[in-house]
Amino acid sequence: MDVLTRKERLCGITAILTNNPSRLYPLSHFSELFGAAKSTLSEDVAIIKEAFERLQLGEIEVLMGASGGIKYIPRMDKQSKDEIVGEIVEKLSNSSRILPGGFIYTADIFLTPRYVDKMAQILWGFFYKTNPDFVITVEAKGIPLAMAVARLFDKPLVVARKESKMTEGSVVTLNYLSGSSKRLQTMSLSKRAVKEGQRALVIDDFIAGGGTLRAIFEMMKEFSITVVGCGVAIATKNPSKKRVENYKSIITLEEINEEMSFIKASSNILE
Amino acid sequence: MDVLTRKERLCGITAILTNNPSRLYPLSHFSELFGAAKSTLSEDVAIIKEAFERLQLGEIEVLMGASGGIKYIPRMDKQSKDEIVGEIVEKLSNSSRILPGGFIYTADIFLTPRYVDKMAQILWGFFYKTNPDFVITVEAKGIPLAMAVARLFDKPLVVARKESKMTEGSVVTLNYLSGSSKRLQTMSLSKRAVKEGQRALVIDDFIAGGGTLRAIFEMMKEFSITVVGCGVAIATKNPSKKRVENYKSIITLEEINEEMSFIKASSNILE
Repeated sequence: MDVLTRKERLCGITAILTNNPSRLYPLSHFSELFGAAKSTLSEDVAIIKEAFERLQLGEIEVLMGASGGIKYIPRMDKQSKDEIVGEIVEKLSNSSRILPGGFIYTADIFLTPRYVDKMAQILWGFFYKTNPDFVITVEAKGIPLAMAVARLFDKPLVVARKESKMTEGSVVTLNYLSGSSKRLQTMSLSKRAVKEGQRALVIDDFIAGGGTLRAIFEMMKEFSITVVGCGVAIATKNPSKKRVENYKSIITLEEINEEMSFIKASSNILE
Repeated sequence: MDVLTRKERLCGITAILTNNPSRLYPLSHFSELFGAAKSTLSEDVAIIKEAFERLQLGEIEVLMGASGGIKYIPRMDKQSKDEIVGEIVEKLSNSSRILPGGFIYTADIFLTPRYVDKMAQILWGFFYKTNPDFVITVEAKGIPLAMAVARLFDKPLVVARKESKMTEGSVVTLNYLSGSSKRLQTMSLSKRAVKEGQRALVIDDFIAGGGTLRAIFEMMKEFSITVVGCGVAIATKNPSKKRVENYKSIITLEEINEEMSFIKASSNILE
């Protein structure tokens, strides 16, 4: 390949970094790829870093030393967060979402890539300093959101199952009461999925009573794993006392009034 | 904001496009964001387009006219596909993955963001001309892969459930025999999730007998929806006759020999 121009390298490095959030690339990766000297690439990186800061596109982190390199850290500014959360709150507040029994239909929101990506970036912002070894959720509605968070950390997702399957191998199973329905539920986790001593970040789409999230915490205890954080997209206002403490949420679902055909939701974004 | 330099704009446009695959951005989006004339931005786009082609980072598609704009189309070259599929085949072939009954543990692969992203890009490559309105899968193991494909199309994912829930609203339910175990299974799809006349792309992690995929096809028929394609990550070699035709797969699982503790898998990547 002919020598690349600086402009071509800038496009190339930017594309690779943004397509692979949190992945550390040593400069040698780009010098092999582009046939450019490391000093030249250092200058390229400085330009990209400044452009990202100026345009509030996230952060380019530069780590020095032998095991150093550069990585892309997505970061949303307050205005972008407010815009996307405002849009989701408005969608959620549509009374046609009310289901019999006072439930709310949210499946479409948690399956729309743009919403999921942005909610994941907000959750990532809460927990990016917690250094988890994996993200954990319970099947099934929270999987896309939790996977998007895992992607931003460049770490694997672990999924606890409600029904244990042959393809999970040997599992640890735990019975629990779901917070809202007080129904006996079962949660299983494959023994192959995690290792003792790891750090887990718990992510789910929704918290009402908190029974399911509590069960994940207990499951982690069974495996001697530290929970470093717990984040959900939507938290109901009631009950105000959940069965887990110290969770963070993006949106509060304040009221679902089936009789009056009325839903009220609000943003929890402060900064 | 002071006027941006071309280099800063190149980084900015590249980052926004690669972070939002298949999303069409009119040039006016960037002229508002960067305070630059459209003619200037056209030159920027030409540079980015050429850089992406030269570095095989995918394609920048330029659509002319009033409703025109630019979008990023990810595309992997043969060598990148071979590398990642080779890596997955090697991982899969590890005999410690064999589970009692001749099953194979694959959960970790389908929950590792890098593998999922790359497999999604390969599946996307099979189907990018099919113009689906949504991607559909059945819970739970295929969800991250199907969501990653949906993200590349910038279209929603739809998930058929094995167990119907209150939060799905009214559903259509279908009974079917799973291809391998011949066990009676149930699949439900929320009536809110899809509309008559839409186009569906079916994605799943695994096909053995094909009973589950066949059930998705039948479900789509119930809703008068056209299936425009069907892609899976892993297809077993046997039975060679599946209950669906015309599916595409990335990897063939040729043999799981529990007694000999031996797994053989191979890549289906031809171009």
